[in-house]
Amino acid sequence: MKKFAVAFLLAAAPASLLAQANPLPPPVAVDPKVAALRDAALNDDYAWDITEGLTTEIGQRLAGSPEEARARDWAVAKLTVMGFKNVRVETFPVKTGTRGTESAEIIAPFPQKLVVNALGGSGHTGPEGVTGEIIAFNSVDELRLAPDSAVRGKIVFIDHHMPANQDGSGYGQFGAPRRQGPTIASLKGAIAIVIRSIGTDHNRTPHTGIMTFANGARPIPAGALSVPDAEQMVRVLKRGKPVTLKLRLEGTYFTGTSGNVIAEVPGRDPSLPPILVGGHLDSWDLGTGAIDDASGVAIATAAAKRIMDAGQPLRTIRVVWFGSEEPGLLGGEDYKAKHGKEPHYAMLESDFGAENIYRIDSKLGEARRDEARMIGAALAPLGIVTGDFDKADGSDIDPMLEDGAPGVALKQDGTRYFDLHHTSNDTLDKIDLAQLRQNVAAWTATVAVLSGGIEPAPKPSRGKRR
Amino acid sequence: MKKFAVAFLLAAAPASLLAQANPLPPPVAVDPKVAALRDAALNDDYAWDITEGLTTEIGQRLAGSPEEARARDWAVAKLTVMGFKNVRVETFPVKTGTRGTESAEIIAPFPQKLVVNALGGSGHTGPEGVTGEIIAFNSVDELRLAPDSAVRGKIVFIDHHMPANQDGSGYGQFGAPRRQGPTIASLKGAIAIVIRSIGTDHNRTPHTGIMTFANGARPIPAGALSVPDAEQMVRVLKRGKPVTLKLRLEGTYFTGTSGNVIAEVPGRDPSLPPILVGGHLDSWDLGTGAIDDASGVAIATAAAKRIMDAGQPLRTIRVVWFGSEEPGLLGGEDYKAKHGKEPHYAMLESDFGAENIYRIDSKLGEARRDEARMIGAALAPLGIVTGDFDKADGSDIDPMLEDGAPGVALKQDGTRYFDLHHTSNDTLDKIDLAQLRQNVAAWTATVAVLSGGIEPAPKPSRGKRR
Repeated sequence: MKKFAVAFLLAAAPASLLAQANPLPPPVAVDPKVAALRDAALNDDYAWDITEGLTTEIGQRLAGSPEEARARDWAVAKLTVMGFKNVRVETFPVKTGTRGTESAEIIAPFPQKLVVNALGGSGHTGPEGVTGEIIAFNSVDELRLAPDSAVRGKIVFIDHHMPANQDGSGYGQFGAPRRQGPTIASLKGAIAIVIRSIGTDHNRTPHTGIMTFANGARPIPAGALSVPDAEQMVRVLKRGKPVTLKLRLEGTYFTGTSGNVIAEVPGRDPSLPPILVGGHLDSWDLGTGAIDDASGVAIATAAAKRIMDAGQPLRTIRVVWFGSEEPGLLGGEDYKAKHGKEPHYAMLESDFGAENIYRIDSKLGEARRDEARMIGAALAPLGIVTGDFDKADGSDIDPMLEDGAPGVALKQDGTRYFDLHHTSNDTLDKIDLAQLRQNVAAWTATVAVLSGGIEPAPKPSRGKRR
Repeated sequence: MKKFAVAFLLAAAPASLLAQANPLPPPVAVDPKVAALRDAALNDDYAWDITEGLTTEIGQRLAGSPEEARARDWAVAKLTVMGFKNVRVETFPVKTGTRGTESAEIIAPFPQKLVVNALGGSGHTGPEGVTGEIIAFNSVDELRLAPDSAVRGKIVFIDHHMPANQDGSGYGQFGAPRRQGPTIASLKGAIAIVIRSIGTDHNRTPHTGIMTFANGARPIPAGALSVPDAEQMVRVLKRGKPVTLKLRLEGTYFTGTSGNVIAEVPGRDPSLPPILVGGHLDSWDLGTGAIDDASGVAIATAAAKRIMDAGQPLRTIRVVWFGSEEPGLLGGEDYKAKHGKEPHYAMLESDFGAENIYRIDSKLGEARRDEARMIGAALAPLGIVTGDFDKADGSDIDPMLEDGAPGVALKQDGTRYFDLHHTSNDTLDKIDLAQLRQNVAAWTATVAVLSGGIEPAPKPSRGKRR
């Protein structure tokens, strides 16, 4: 019926319109096995099980901390029980720390406490704190344009106006106060810096995140005020009187151990390059890292598990739970150093929450365009738009994608993501089961296509059974 | 047109239906002056100005604290500048305190930190904290039914299932874990108690609130876990292993001073009983008390101010910003002790947030039914339903209403109220300006009707002007 309707419309359309219309690419048939796996995954419970287990039995998993180490043990046990093979941990050293006492208090003109958390990499104030006059800026550029003499000896406050966008755009541009602010403030002689949290919510839950002092800048205390507290600071400043802030950020740093947890679904042809699917195991220390990124490792792992349950894929599926993503993709760096030169058939990482996937981008190369279109066709019934064929990204895998590794990016709806990102509010209750399952369905279909075909698994030999 | 349509329908309706229908009461004409005042108030800025000022320049205003004292000074200055007369403070002593270090930590089986705040009236743990095994209950009744031997020496955890209702119902029944839980736990020999916050949100922001140890119960440490943390506790408990919690609540108590701030719009006939309109000045110490109850004093005061600006009412309007409502309506008690025997024409208090008023109840007595209906008619264009004629309430004024004082209750939509109530999230950004103005419009119309008529204010005599 639909074909006839299209034919009729085409016949009725003026020739000039037809000439302008983009020609439809050749039709793609979705493999019924892939469709069946996809649809079955809409009732998936593996991803919930992993997300719930990791956030309940471990909780926060700060990179390099004892909790992250316990999470690796948990991961090894879980992946083994689920039936994955070659389960192993590859460790590496990282700088880690503990969050000490943290407080911010307006001393004058209107004494009151504000809610603050240190940024990752902040200098520390010591128990006596630092006290100084606030100098306020609307952006990093305003701070950069200010004369050093205006900033010296003061506490810098940087505001921003980050919007909530579906694709998360805004985090790049409006994240500058966190990423560049502390260095610039330090180089201009500021004694500390507080920023409006890089977030889109209105909760008293500041957003932490990593920051590095660059260009020889001396580390200074650097904190994030919650959004309501930053707005309060703006109102207080608007009264026009000098504002004095007392800041205590007593975090300390030391060297710890992190690591990547790796597990596999062995392919029928072990000589073929594997498909890497992953997320990151570490989290910030304020919440339990449910959306960042327990759900990510859970989605990638659930997809691999569902294919394992269906039989044996042609290609090996390698599941990686990266360690130490938050301090700067350190797990990805370690994996790249150890495995980056091995060929990979495709890489995919889930690290943007657990809300619906709405778009697929891929960068599999011109020669594999049909494969990319086949994935798109398999995802369309989930309401997923086929996007670009020359783009892919994913936090830990980005450096390898940039070096030319093939990749697929299943884009999650990030409208709500920066309400929760890096806050104490990143907890299990924020995960919507139906949307989590849609992710697993999309991942399962994608990996099923990439896997090169799933056949019944060979029965174990009698000898082995004894 | 409408009249004809109604007549036609009545004519066409079977006699039996007509007999069943409630007869319409006689029509009420709304005084055009009242309607004009009401509609002008939909552009009100006085309420925003007070709410913004109090929450910005004072912030939290814990009953009996130095901050509440500063808030009284602020109130006196503000009410004086606004043109109110007889501005005065009536002080009284209260028990107050400071919130010390607070923490909760699951020690076993899954070590992790939880977010906790002490309840008002909690015992303190000292810096060493208390550590014990959790015994969990779904309700206060479950705790009451448990043998003392099961509770003795343990830390009680009480869950609940409070819904979000427009009228706030649920806070009574489901607030029992906070109000009665600590006493019952103490009498059964528990060493501490933590409850699921009495709230309807999913933020890591616990809900504090007052609680009193009754029946000779020894004070024990009593804290509220945030809702996500309480849910985490439930998940951890479901694993079936003993759960050990370490709790630190180091608050201390001392005697402070509180007080009511009173101001008036003098009526043309000072011999007539005044109309009391108010809210409460104190707040809990976690947020800035924007919805509880800066907006309440702001709404009541804005309505009085708008009538003052329009002329002089027949009856005096007395504005009261009650102190120490949160620890148990102590400002209301003090007012009642000092003024409860004076006749009041009506009492109204705003203390349920700043969202739209959706219903008016009143208890003005049978003889004043027409006046009550006139208020209802004046509010109907704001989408406000006329409710009961034999009911009124309001926190601080409740004891006087119960003793027979006439009252009006303008009911605010509370669907969102218990997301924020008594948490750090009770901040200015939660106030919706359009809904705040709808409140002021409803209050202005109500007080305008009660005021007995507003006439042009007498010009100051020449002598006085010099």
